[in-house]
Amino acid sequence: MKPDVRKISEGLVAGRFLELARAISLVEQDDPAVNDLLAEIYSSTGRARIIGITGSPGAGKSTLVAAMTRHFRRQGRRVGIIAVDPTSPFTGGAILGDRIRMADLYTDRGVFIRSMATRGFLGGLARATNDVVDLLDAGGFDIVLVETVGVGQDEVEVIRTVQSNVVVLVPGMGDDIQAIKAGIMEIADVFVVNKADRPGADRTVTEVTTMMSLVEEHGDWLPSIVKTVASKQQGIEELDQALDAHFNYLRTSGELDRRNRERVRIRVETYLKESFLRKLIDETLGRDAYDATLEDVLGKRVNPQGAALAMLEKAGL
Amino acid sequence: MKPDVRKISEGLVAGRFLELARAISLVEQDDPAVNDLLAEIYSSTGRARIIGITGSPGAGKSTLVAAMTRHFRRQGRRVGIIAVDPTSPFTGGAILGDRIRMADLYTDRGVFIRSMATRGFLGGLARATNDVVDLLDAGGFDIVLVETVGVGQDEVEVIRTVQSNVVVLVPGMGDDIQAIKAGIMEIADVFVVNKADRPGADRTVTEVTTMMSLVEEHGDWLPSIVKTVASKQQGIEELDQALDAHFNYLRTSGELDRRNRERVRIRVETYLKESFLRKLIDETLGRDAYDATLEDVLGKRVNPQGAALAMLEKAGL
Repeated sequence: MKPDVRKISEGLVAGRFLELARAISLVEQDDPAVNDLLAEIYSSTGRARIIGITGSPGAGKSTLVAAMTRHFRRQGRRVGIIAVDPTSPFTGGAILGDRIRMADLYTDRGVFIRSMATRGFLGGLARATNDVVDLLDAGGFDIVLVETVGVGQDEVEVIRTVQSNVVVLVPGMGDDIQAIKAGIMEIADVFVVNKADRPGADRTVTEVTTMMSLVEEHGDWLPSIVKTVASKQQGIEELDQALDAHFNYLRTSGELDRRNRERVRIRVETYLKESFLRKLIDETLGRDAYDATLEDVLGKRVNPQGAALAMLEKAGL
Repeated sequence: MKPDVRKISEGLVAGRFLELARAISLVEQDDPAVNDLLAEIYSSTGRARIIGITGSPGAGKSTLVAAMTRHFRRQGRRVGIIAVDPTSPFTGGAILGDRIRMADLYTDRGVFIRSMATRGFLGGLARATNDVVDLLDAGGFDIVLVETVGVGQDEVEVIRTVQSNVVVLVPGMGDDIQAIKAGIMEIADVFVVNKADRPGADRTVTEVTTMMSLVEEHGDWLPSIVKTVASKQQGIEELDQALDAHFNYLRTSGELDRRNRERVRIRVETYLKESFLRKLIDETLGRDAYDATLEDVLGKRVNPQGAALAMLEKAGL
């Protein structure tokens, strides 16, 4: 049955869960109606705060997301949770106990939880995640929390499109461990040292401070460091304040505009590239001719660039 | 001065350093002559073993690369080193002591070391790295070692195109730390527990073994785990054997063919997508019209997909 785009978009913008869930399913299935639907709801987007929560599975990231959600709920704000991490309790990848501890969130009508952990997402995980962020935004969710491990091509692309990014660490990681994080130091707007009731929390704070002094580029914003015990709801108020301070910085510095622009650019270019490639292979050249060309490259009869140039020429480009 | 492609490619294939260095510079500068040069040398590629070395800056990855290089050199094999990690001694990002410890490699004519750590690499870091692999391969290097941190979009793309990937860990990482690695567990063909003379090496081996049992998909190949003390040249023979075993598996299982195909596919598609986007923006639409469209998306007058579709239509696609 062809989905009724108008009905779904109206229901979604009115805040109804049924239509929101339906819309997300359409995105997941890369349904032909998705373009119309996304176009329909796009003017209703732009109000949500989009916050990334990045960290290792062991860092208690999902517990932190749950604690933040409860905090925001007490402020009367609606929260959308998108879990990209396949080991997150929100994606069903974790032990039952974790899910039970989050039962209150699943029954709260002001919270919408969606797992994006399925592999081989039609149309690409990063694109789908951004589309779901739009749907939640248009659906009136004040906060959208995007939970990722922060490793892998898709996840990095997701992180690049959030407004604020929280990097979650835990005490007891040695120097070597902090070093691992070097690659994601630059994407952190706020650091959380979670499980801060464990020994070594202060040492971890010191280590992060030291590391930050080594990273040359973090613009005008010096990432803040917040200690939390998410399982006991401790430090969440401070985290909220740190995120508010960051958002304030984003707004007053012009950085919010820059990030929104970057988000738009990445989304448009990803879509352009993927659509072009699909059309080129499936329509202009045909899958067989394309595979034959790859075979030629494999057989050293032509090099990758030469093959690509010839195909672009065939496509009239 | 227009580069003499024929002269450079002949010199390179004959194994001359001068022409090799010149060719790599052309790739770095994305010189117009690069396509001809890469086409010229491509039929001479396909002989080198391409091995990725992935791990945190603290893991002693560069020391391991140096130890492996010395080992391969004693076997009479020529080794190319491509350092993508910006904190690697090979890229000049580390302390002088590290560089001095590698002085023997810099003066060995059977070793070629190249840093790819410069940001904003013209034409893309992943593409440039693959092109340099081709140049070293055609230049007669038997082994090409590609050193990466394994974090970030470009690096992940680089890792996807090597034949064997070595993931370097160090003892003393707790469970939380190993969990960090979950995302890269699946890309490891061989694990190295380096600095194995430190306490906790066996525990780390056990942890990796446990983690591997939790990862569902690693095909028919169960990654081997090798303990090394790279600074003392210990365990390198075992690592060589583990890599040989993996290469043997690749060959006999048909996986080598599959990886080579995947490598070709990624390279061709990356080139197609980037070339298309550049042509679309700079030639078909013009930079101003493109920026205006992004502005429309930012102003919510059109959504990302809608904007992309309209642009594709304008380009006659």
